[in-house]
Amino acid sequence: MRIKNLLAAALVGALTFTTTISQAADLLPSWNDGATKKSVTDFVAKVTTAGSPDFVPVPERIATFDNDGTLWCEQPLYTQLFFALDRVKALAPSHPEWKSKEPFASILKGDVKPALAGGEHGILEIVAATHAGMTTDEFNQTVKDWIATAKNPVLKRPYTECVYQPMLELMAYLRANGFKTFIVSGGGIEFMRPWTESVYGVPPEQVVGSSGKLKYEMRDGQPVLLKLPEIDFIDDKDGKPIGIQEHIGRRPIAAFGNSDGDQQMLEWTGAGGGARLMMLVHHDDATREFEYGAESHIGTFSDALMALAKKNSWSVISMKDDWKTIFAFEK
Amino acid sequence: MRIKNLLAAALVGALTFTTTISQAADLLPSWNDGATKKSVTDFVAKVTTAGSPDFVPVPERIATFDNDGTLWCEQPLYTQLFFALDRVKALAPSHPEWKSKEPFASILKGDVKPALAGGEHGILEIVAATHAGMTTDEFNQTVKDWIATAKNPVLKRPYTECVYQPMLELMAYLRANGFKTFIVSGGGIEFMRPWTESVYGVPPEQVVGSSGKLKYEMRDGQPVLLKLPEIDFIDDKDGKPIGIQEHIGRRPIAAFGNSDGDQQMLEWTGAGGGARLMMLVHHDDATREFEYGAESHIGTFSDALMALAKKNSWSVISMKDDWKTIFAFEK
Repeated sequence: MRIKNLLAAALVGALTFTTTISQAADLLPSWNDGATKKSVTDFVAKVTTAGSPDFVPVPERIATFDNDGTLWCEQPLYTQLFFALDRVKALAPSHPEWKSKEPFASILKGDVKPALAGGEHGILEIVAATHAGMTTDEFNQTVKDWIATAKNPVLKRPYTECVYQPMLELMAYLRANGFKTFIVSGGGIEFMRPWTESVYGVPPEQVVGSSGKLKYEMRDGQPVLLKLPEIDFIDDKDGKPIGIQEHIGRRPIAAFGNSDGDQQMLEWTGAGGGARLMMLVHHDDATREFEYGAESHIGTFSDALMALAKKNSWSVISMKDDWKTIFAFEK
Repeated sequence: MRIKNLLAAALVGALTFTTTISQAADLLPSWNDGATKKSVTDFVAKVTTAGSPDFVPVPERIATFDNDGTLWCEQPLYTQLFFALDRVKALAPSHPEWKSKEPFASILKGDVKPALAGGEHGILEIVAATHAGMTTDEFNQTVKDWIATAKNPVLKRPYTECVYQPMLELMAYLRANGFKTFIVSGGGIEFMRPWTESVYGVPPEQVVGSSGKLKYEMRDGQPVLLKLPEIDFIDDKDGKPIGIQEHIGRRPIAAFGNSDGDQQMLEWTGAGGGARLMMLVHHDDATREFEYGAESHIGTFSDALMALAKKNSWSVISMKDDWKTIFAFEK
C-alpha cells in the first residue's frame, strides 16, 4: 500500500510537472521571441496536449540532434580532427617513421593543410593511427583526458564550453516534455560518448555516430574490446536514417541539423506523418561565432538544402536573429 | 516556484519508492525462496544502497538479457525460424521456382529438417528470402501480423505467452530499482522490436540483435529504408560484447543468458569491477517446459559453460527448483 501511494504521488507530481512545462516559455531564455521560437513551442504544445489530434505518447517522443555545427562549434575544424592531430603529436615518439611519411610529416611540422588536402585516404590514415590499436577503455580515457584541457584555437575556450546555449535549453525543454533526446552525428561514436552525458545530458546509449570495427579478445585472462583500423559505419547523409533505424528502431518526430549531411535525417523524420519538427541551424553570425554555409567545406549548407528547407517547411534558425545568447561564456 | 515544488515532490516520491522496492521481496512471487533468488535481491540491495561501497549511480545500472531461452521459449525451434518458414509458405505463390529449389522445396512439402540440416548457407538463404527485399515498415507490419496469431506448436500458446513469468518479474524489479533493461540477442533486431515493448516493457531503442544491411532510397518522393539480403552484424558469442559497446556504450552490471552464446556477454559484464550479477537459465524442467543443455543444437549449455559458471560464481537458475511458476498461463 505504502509503495502504491508513493508511486501515485510520484506520478501525479511528474505528470503535473510535464503539463506545466510546455507553457513555460522561459525555459528557452536564450531564444529571441519570433517565428522560429514559436515553431518549437507550438510543436511541443501540439504533441503533448492530451486529446489533441497531434498528441504523441511519451515513448514515441524521439528527438535527434546532429552534433558538429548543431550542438557545438565545428569551426575552424571539426573538434575530432583537432583531437586526431594532437594524438599524432602525442604518439610521434613511438613512430619515428612518421617523420618522413605523409600525412604525418606535415602534421608534425605544424602544417595541417596538406594532410587534410590529401582527401579521404589521408584522413582515414590519420583516424586509423589515432583511433585504433587500443582498447575501448583506453580510448575512452584518452578522450576524457584530452577534452578536459583542449581549447578551440579561435574561441580560446574549452571545446565543451563551445556548445550552443539555446540548443542546451531546447534539449532540456524537450526532455521536460517527455522527449528522449539522441545525438545522431557523423562524428565518432566513441569520441562523443565520454562527455555527452555531462555536457548535453545525453547518456552513451543515446549517442549514434560513425564507428570502427571492434574485436573481442582475452588479455591476461581479462576480456577487452580492441578498436580495429577498419571503418564499420559512416553516420552521415544516407547513413543517418540507417543509424537511427539500427540504434533507435523508431522514427524521430523532431530532428535538428545544420548541413547537407543532415538532409536525409530531416527527410526521414518529416515523412512519418503527424506533427513533426525539422530545424536547421544557419551559421550567419560572424561576430559571435562564424559565418559560413554554401561555400564551406566544413558544415556545407548548400543552396539546394536551403531550397529544400523552404519547400518542406523546415525551420531555418538564424543564429544572428533567433539566438539572444550563443555561448554561456558570453554572459 | 510551483514547478520547482512539484518537481521536488515527484523526485522525493520516486526516490522513496525506489528505496522501498529493493526490500520488497514479493515483487518476485514466481521465484522460490533460496540461494538463487537471494543472489538477485542481495545484489540489488548492494548496488542501490546509498553509501554502500557497491553503490552504483542510476545511469550506470544497465542490465542485459538474452532473449531466446532466457526470456521466452526457444524450443522446439527458435521462434524466428518458425516465422521464416511461415513466410516461405506465404511468399511461395510469387516464387514458382521454389518448388524445385532447396531449401524451399522441402519446406513447402512440410519437411523442415533437410532445410535446416543444410547448415548456415541454407539458413542464410531462408533469411534472405524472408527478411529482405522489403522496407523496414513493411517488415515491421509483417512481424506484427504474424506474432498476433502464430502459436508454439508444442505449448499450443501464442509465442508472446511463452515468456518466462519469473524473468518478467525480474525485469520489472530491476527497472523499479533504477535499472535500464536491454535485450541483447542473437535474434534479428527488426524481428524483436515490434513486440518487445508490449511483452517485456523493453522499448525498441533498448533492443540489440543481429541485423541485415539497410539502404535509404526515395520511392515516389517518399524516403524508405530497404532491407538488403546481406548480413550486417551477428549478435552472438563475441558479437554480444561488441553489440553492447556499439549500442549501449557502457558495460552492464548485470547480465542474463542461457547458453554458450551468452558466455562472452557474461565475461564482459563480470570483468567490470564492483558488484556484478551474472545468471544463466538452465532448462531442466521437462514437465513444465523442456529439458535440454549440453547435447542440444538449440540453446547449447555445454559442460564447459557449466564449469565456467562454477569458476566465476555465475548463478545457474534451475527452472525446476528456482521457479514456482514458469508461464503465466499455468496459473
